[in-house]
Amino acid sequence: MSRIITLTTDFGTHDEYVGVMKGVILGRAPQALLVDISHHIRAHDIRQAAALIAAGYSFFPAGTIHVVVVDPGVGGGRKIILVTSGGHHFLAPDNGLLTQLLAPDLFQSAFEVECEELFLKPVSRTFHGRDIFAPVAAALANAMKPEDVGRSLNRQELVTLTRSEPVFDLEQNCLTGTITRIDRFGNLATNVTVDHISRLFPDLCHWEGRLNLFCVIVKATTIIGPSSSYDQVQAGELLFLINSRGELEIAANRDNAAESLSVSVGEHILVTTLPDSATRKGVC
Amino acid sequence: MSRIITLTTDFGTHDEYVGVMKGVILGRAPQALLVDISHHIRAHDIRQAAALIAAGYSFFPAGTIHVVVVDPGVGGGRKIILVTSGGHHFLAPDNGLLTQLLAPDLFQSAFEVECEELFLKPVSRTFHGRDIFAPVAAALANAMKPEDVGRSLNRQELVTLTRSEPVFDLEQNCLTGTITRIDRFGNLATNVTVDHISRLFPDLCHWEGRLNLFCVIVKATTIIGPSSSYDQVQAGELLFLINSRGELEIAANRDNAAESLSVSVGEHILVTTLPDSATRKGVC
Amino acid sequence: MSRIITLTTDFGTHDEYVGVMKGVILGRAPQALLVDISHHIRAHDIRQAAALIAAGYSFFPAGTIHVVVVDPGVGGGRKIILVTSGGHHFLAPDNGLLTQLLAPDLFQSAFEVECEELFLKPVSRTFHGRDIFAPVAAALANAMKPEDVGRSLNRQELVTLTRSEPVFDLEQNCLTGTITRIDRFGNLATNVTVDHISRLFPDLCHWEGRLNLFCVIVKATTIIGPSSSYDQVQAGELLFLINSRGELEIAANRDNAAESLSVSVGEHILVTTLPDSATRKGVC
Repeated sequence: MSRIITLTTDFGTHDEYVGVMKGVILGRAPQALLVDISHHIRAHDIRQAAALIAAGYSFFPAGTIHVVVVDPGVGGGRKIILVTSGGHHFLAPDNGLLTQLLAPDLFQSAFEVECEELFLKPVSRTFHGRDIFAPVAAALANAMKPEDVGRSLNRQELVTLTRSEPVFDLEQNCLTGTITRIDRFGNLATNVTVDHISRLFPDLCHWEGRLNLFCVIVKATTIIGPSSSYDQVQAGELLFLINSRGELEIAANRDNAAESLSVSVGEHILVTTLPDSATRKGVC
Repeated sequence: MSRIITLTTDFGTHDEYVGVMKGVILGRAPQALLVDISHHIRAHDIRQAAALIAAGYSFFPAGTIHVVVVDPGVGGGRKIILVTSGGHHFLAPDNGLLTQLLAPDLFQSAFEVECEELFLKPVSRTFHGRDIFAPVAAALANAMKPEDVGRSLNRQELVTLTRSEPVFDLEQNCLTGTITRIDRFGNLATNVTVDHISRLFPDLCHWEGRLNLFCVIVKATTIIGPSSSYDQVQAGELLFLINSRGELEIAANRDNAAESLSVSVGEHILVTTLPDSATRKGVC
Repeated sequence: MSRIITLTTDFGTHDEYVGVMKGVILGRAPQALLVDISHHIRAHDIRQAAALIAAGYSFFPAGTIHVVVVDPGVGGGRKIILVTSGGHHFLAPDNGLLTQLLAPDLFQSAFEVECEELFLKPVSRTFHGRDIFAPVAAALANAMKPEDVGRSLNRQELVTLTRSEPVFDLEQNCLTGTITRIDRFGNLATNVTVDHISRLFPDLCHWEGRLNLFCVIVKATTIIGPSSSYDQVQAGELLFLINSRGELEIAANRDNAAESLSVSVGEHILVTTLPDSATRKGVC
């Protein structure tokens, strides 16, 4: 177990909620090292938080304790679970937040949090982050064993979210994906990954790092790519590339693609072959 | 004295102000453990900050040093004070920020900060957080005694804010409260506490955890409750419960009550008996 | 080398980017002490970040490692540099972020970051904060010497930004400056410094702390000052003073000057002598 505890919530940073969780943890585990991942998950957006923790956890040292609290069912019947997966520990409500971490190749164990003797009393009806998650995370940082939080759970017992997958039309050499996230820069992340691209264009071997091999259509705009960096096109121009999460991302060099294209999360994109008029400018 | 120093300000996180305070503290007290409570107090809103620190401080270990800087009078004649209350230390301008901590059952001591030899020189006219609060907090974390910051002050010498209290109409079995805070989820906190409810309905013993005992009217909407958790009503429906601060709170399950009701801070609410048409659905 | 690493970026705090950088650093340098300066630099605004780090760095202990990532050219041809200046270390893309730190009286050394063996592999095209800056910062916190990151660079090889300077009209006893920054309080910082004022009015010796010596005109409004603190005028009234960065700042007591005056960054101001109708109210 690492002494690092990460926090991911939809609590925002205006109220005292996050600070109070840290106070509870540090009161019980003074050696804990607290790292905020994000407290600006959209209120109740389990899907956004699930994608974020899945994208971020592996950059922390093995054994890190990740506390993820997006919990619209707080105080109700949902379980609180401790999942060990990919060498990390995840403390979360059982509402789908850990969907990606329950993949069979990552999953190691799951336990229901039942160790009421650790909870702050009386447990409030609305803030289990403070009353349950914080003290249990502190106990884990103090070397409590995962199996000591409560009864063992099967992977199949846990709530998972369905995830939208791109739709392939291999006869037409195209796939339809979806914009899943818009970051602070207006970059448009999609549910299309490196693996999807390789499956769509099996003749393209070692295509990463090569330029202008296929195209992406969003609304009525056709973008030829991939690019290998944002500044490979003129300032303000659209491009696409593989981002730091391994996703196909549409961006605009030194500009905001979401505004340029007037798109929102949920918009569809088409990945397809180059138009006849385009010549491959890349190294292939 | 704990090595934990909490920071609560209206500085925001866009400018360098908070980071610079931390730099000054860590330069003088490298072992200090800094925890942000909030830097998003509305600019100059002493009342909001006072409620927030009062709600949050006790979840930190005894001896924690809480630095609270919402200071529209910076550079002017207001005092800077160090108050010990409830086993914690509070460093703040004397402008009402510590009102709740000056209650006779909590208050332990107060001193005026006069230890100029600790201040950063020259002291700026606009940023005492950096030039005075940070170095004094560091000295306290380095085990300076509270009485060594300056002359002793009486509790009565210190500035306090008047607080709005609910108005009871015991003949009509109702009270009028006020919405005091809207959090990130659109939950509406009020100035009505558990104690007020118990005083209004003395025949309700052990009412917490029991359901649908009385009602709250906000604008033209009547809500029957309390609920014991958000998800005890259908998604989108209004409810009320006792929140993590011990306040009566109006919320909407997986939705935003402030938007549903179009209310703002300052709106009045009425707590009253159940309408004749309602049947108690709870356990009583 | 201090164990303190500060972070200044335009990444925002909604996504996992900042948390992930911290994970990488702490995995390699567990003893590092991470301090956020700001992650809310406007997207791609190198000029804003350059001013912020120049204003803030010196309040940290000597030897602090400052990581500054506002990097629209990420993945392209720009260098990554490690500059030692004023006793501190700065890791940044070579795009002007360190302009103020390259002043001859501060500058000590510069090296290009070429130590690829430290980078996370594969290096992404879009997130060098995670893949290059974080591991190199960790290595520095682990006592790697600056010269070990790569080849030495001359100060003259590095990218600098031109900075707007006030324009003097000494015959008319006035200067034209520019509003460069509006903070959370609506205070208007300008590019006019204490030194500029002293040069404009050489007959004013020891003018700081004295009141109502000259005036500032912004839009059609004339403000007489300086004031020595915000609350030296009535609530809501405009004033100007020297702020915590040593800049001439226009503010409104307990109010928002930017809104009162309807001004934006880039607006010009005029600093000039008192109008004939005004009498000096100060001590001079």
